[in-house]
Amino acid sequence: MSERVQRAVDVMTSHDLDGILITNPVNRRYLSGWTAEDHGFDESSGILLIDQTKRLLLTGGTNLPWATAEAGDFMTEAWQRPWPVSVANRIRELGWQRIGFEDAFLSVADFALLQDNLGNDVGLAPLDNAIDALRAIKSSEEIALMAEVTRLTDEAFVRGSATLTAGMTEIELARNIQDALRAVGSEGEGFETIVASGPNAAKPHHRPGDRRIEPGEPVIIDMGALWHGYRGDLTRTIWIGDADQRLRDIYAAVLEAHNASKAAVRAGATGSDVDQVSRDVFARLGYSDYVIHGVGHGVGLRIHEAPSAGPGSTDVLRAGEVLTIEPGLYIDGWGGVRIENLVIIEEDGCRDLTTAPLMKD
Amino acid sequence: MSERVQRAVDVMTSHDLDGILITNPVNRRYLSGWTAEDHGFDESSGILLIDQTKRLLLTGGTNLPWATAEAGDFMTEAWQRPWPVSVANRIRELGWQRIGFEDAFLSVADFALLQDNLGNDVGLAPLDNAIDALRAIKSSEEIALMAEVTRLTDEAFVRGSATLTAGMTEIELARNIQDALRAVGSEGEGFETIVASGPNAAKPHHRPGDRRIEPGEPVIIDMGALWHGYRGDLTRTIWIGDADQRLRDIYAAVLEAHNASKAAVRAGATGSDVDQVSRDVFARLGYSDYVIHGVGHGVGLRIHEAPSAGPGSTDVLRAGEVLTIEPGLYIDGWGGVRIENLVIIEEDGCRDLTTAPLMKD
Repeated sequence: MSERVQRAVDVMTSHDLDGILITNPVNRRYLSGWTAEDHGFDESSGILLIDQTKRLLLTGGTNLPWATAEAGDFMTEAWQRPWPVSVANRIRELGWQRIGFEDAFLSVADFALLQDNLGNDVGLAPLDNAIDALRAIKSSEEIALMAEVTRLTDEAFVRGSATLTAGMTEIELARNIQDALRAVGSEGEGFETIVASGPNAAKPHHRPGDRRIEPGEPVIIDMGALWHGYRGDLTRTIWIGDADQRLRDIYAAVLEAHNASKAAVRAGATGSDVDQVSRDVFARLGYSDYVIHGVGHGVGLRIHEAPSAGPGSTDVLRAGEVLTIEPGLYIDGWGGVRIENLVIIEEDGCRDLTTAPLMKD
Repeated sequence: MSERVQRAVDVMTSHDLDGILITNPVNRRYLSGWTAEDHGFDESSGILLIDQTKRLLLTGGTNLPWATAEAGDFMTEAWQRPWPVSVANRIRELGWQRIGFEDAFLSVADFALLQDNLGNDVGLAPLDNAIDALRAIKSSEEIALMAEVTRLTDEAFVRGSATLTAGMTEIELARNIQDALRAVGSEGEGFETIVASGPNAAKPHHRPGDRRIEPGEPVIIDMGALWHGYRGDLTRTIWIGDADQRLRDIYAAVLEAHNASKAAVRAGATGSDVDQVSRDVFARLGYSDYVIHGVGHGVGLRIHEAPSAGPGSTDVLRAGEVLTIEPGLYIDGWGGVRIENLVIIEEDGCRDLTTAPLMKD
């Protein structure tokens, strides 16, 4: 853990700050090891204060035993609500004059309370995504966790999707997948399982409903296990019985784009390079009108994190980063196809962690 | 839905504003009917813009069909990312000069981007919790949903807790409760189920672990169903076999406090009045050192919402509000007891929705 904190301290130093305030609960976990989540954006479970010599975790009194047990490198202290007042007082005791904060994870209300109680002689400097960026390259331990969560995801997909029969509703299939995730040992869902059938498959973020799944129509399953906080991410498009020519053609196009983008992943490529490869395949096959999202994103303690692989992404991919490869085609009124694997970026390519089967053509 | 929007417009008018920006996803759902959640605080699924005549929902293009299907009273429009730029442009088209925003649910980063793109002639006025406050008093339809989610919660508690046998781990019991929630038809968990046994029961927010549950020790189960977005909230403390005198005494004390606080609930009482009644019981019985949280909170689309019933709460309870009554005692190294029901506040008392059984003494 301390190597992670050291990198946070390096951010502090390079920004010429006296200390940093961590409010993003995922970064709190990443840096301290404390596994608590927040009930909501306005219900923080705790914050970190880090400087050259101190690592403090402030939380409610009822959380102290838990936080102390898990955040071994941090001194834990109880705060009083509203927490920005407590934290401002503690920062004044520490004598910090210039404080880095996570501007994407601090509300205007909490910022105002914090600044009011710090006084105008103390400056709060936005860190943008500098702390999140620390999580992008995974350690070997984290890569092992991503491999394990992917193995759990794939196994649960195989078990869950095997239960599909004609007439089953989307919700029933989603529940069977949730059952399968638990049966294989997942700690929960990495995100809300998507089952989108027939015309619903044209909506990438469809929530499973009461629609009954019939033979020959596309069924998009987008799912992930959860393991030590790390999230799996897998999409397969399947169908019952035989597919008509249109579905077979679209499936083949998406698979070709998927493989082409995957082949383009390597350290030094940009996110938009990898995205463009899929778009080029779709353009050549005449499907450009049906592309409605980027080809991939990073995954780790959050289901969406750096790097981004969409149009316009200037993120330069680095070895040790995780990326989804998930091109899709979506046709209003008909349905859609998406195929998603999870890869680890390497110097001269990538390692595909996903082993879930594809539909045979 | 339109009556809810009208009340939001009333807030706008009383604050002398041209329009309001809704960023809290729960308020977005409450006002528009769109059931989407946000992946994270920095991953908004959409926002609302409301003025005297317009109801706009802005979201990503991939969400448009879903949002349009559910948010019948709203015009849906696609935004471009980063959304504060798109939304600022739209607000400028609308000609608003003074805009109310949810300062507890807008990040410093998004605020800065919004203000930069609005220009300095446009003012952003914090609404504090004025929009959240609209949700506190439940309509008859919402009270029916709260009654149903409580019925599902209670039934799942009975089924799930019946599986407890000596040697079962906390996680196993938590999974049985999750199974029971799904078996009775719950849409999921209203919040992460707590199972805390023996010494772990001294931690109100304990996460279920591998500890094996033995006869005679307290087992706190804190759980809730989910129904149309509304959340149940129930706590029972149970044990296998016989309890020793200490557990029986503490259980009796908590039950007495629970019943006393419940009897004190009525419109016009303050949250701290109801809290103090439990504290008085505990003081009389010599347990004051073991009280570490307030007696209750509101519940609805969020698991914690207005009103608050803790020490110092000045919230005046109103008919139609929902409140948990959940006094507890927590003794380090030994364990704890908490008993929680959900009530609807009425003019001259309250209606207890919870029917889950208590331990017989």
